[in-house]
Amino acid sequence: MPIRLETWFAVGSAYTWLAIRRAEMLEAAGEVVFDWKPYSTRIVMSELGTLPKNAPVKLAYIWRDIERRAPRLGLSPRFPAPYPLVDYDRANHVAVLAAREGWCFDYLRATYRRWMQEGQVAGAEPNLSESLREIGRDPVETLARADAPEIAAAFLANTDRARELGVFGAPTFRVGEELFWGEDRLDDALDWARTGRLSAP
Amino acid sequence: MPIRLETWFAVGSAYTWLAIRRAEMLEAAGEVVFDWKPYSTRIVMSELGTLPKNAPVKLAYIWRDIERRAPRLGLSPRFPAPYPLVDYDRANHVAVLAAREGWCFDYLRATYRRWMQEGQVAGAEPNLSESLREIGRDPVETLARADAPEIAAAFLANTDRARELGVFGAPTFRVGEELFWGEDRLDDALDWARTGRLSAP
Repeated sequence: MPIRLETWFAVGSAYTWLAIRRAEMLEAAGEVVFDWKPYSTRIVMSELGTLPKNAPVKLAYIWRDIERRAPRLGLSPRFPAPYPLVDYDRANHVAVLAAREGWCFDYLRATYRRWMQEGQVAGAEPNLSESLREIGRDPVETLARADAPEIAAAFLANTDRARELGVFGAPTFRVGEELFWGEDRLDDALDWARTGRLSAP
Repeated sequence: MPIRLETWFAVGSAYTWLAIRRAEMLEAAGEVVFDWKPYSTRIVMSELGTLPKNAPVKLAYIWRDIERRAPRLGLSPRFPAPYPLVDYDRANHVAVLAAREGWCFDYLRATYRRWMQEGQVAGAEPNLSESLREIGRDPVETLARADAPEIAAAFLANTDRARELGVFGAPTFRVGEELFWGEDRLDDALDWARTGRLSAP
């Protein structure tokens, strides 16, 4: 039985790109199924004062860290990628709809590839329509549904739930009552899910 | 030839505890020599607004993350450990003196063990004197030298240098022009030092 891993994230989180790639490899191996939970990191981190743009030297480091780590996952970053996302909410509303309908992972792969490797900003055109078309969704019909107030409300409800759980960054993996923050804690999360502790490194 | 790894840190950084343990294992294997550079994370992070105490939910996570990761390095945390350090500057002034005289690593091991495993706050008594005695230093004479204005000035000079390098957290490993932030980036730093890139995970 693959592990079902609750994964809190936002389209707009740069490290989530690496997590998506790891997820792709793990799902292909049949080990894990990712349960994607989009929430507004922007709201939560703004409340906490932890938005990376507040500390430019840290933000610059983050991009460099990702640029160094991406190639060993077979990813080819084309940096600087547009950041932060102007249409952050819309990028995530599509993710909320997608998570509800079971095609979130497909959407994430497509939209992040365009964002991180092709310089097309996520949440905006042409990234949105091209990503949807690539994964077999009609852009006009899909975006109309993603733009419904009900989806925006669901995104805020996810955000409230994330705050309640103590989630404060992305990606965050939840295993029982334990949170594992960061793409670099994915192995810890899986260890914990399998054995209830962390194995030797 | 072992790699000489420039390591920016402060006594007071919780994650530095894990780095010290990793360093111990790597030095024992003859692979790496750590060049300890104490600087004031408190000044730099306060300027950046990134002090963990500003975001209590994140701080709570950090302690739990360390508590989960410590045992697989053979460490036995006794948490909560006193935090933040009241005598932060003094704890680091001793480190500055120690780095200058070549016994910084010994000091770090002794003072962190007391802090993280025995509940004795670093930078204060009895931790300071007991740690110094354990590593064969006379506490009275050593602390008198650590309390000299010149040592405080050297600590601030290190802090200026860290800021200039773009160091914003602890531990941070520097390899050429590249920074690697976090105990969890130690392997990346060593990969980079050995090959100029990151090998497959």
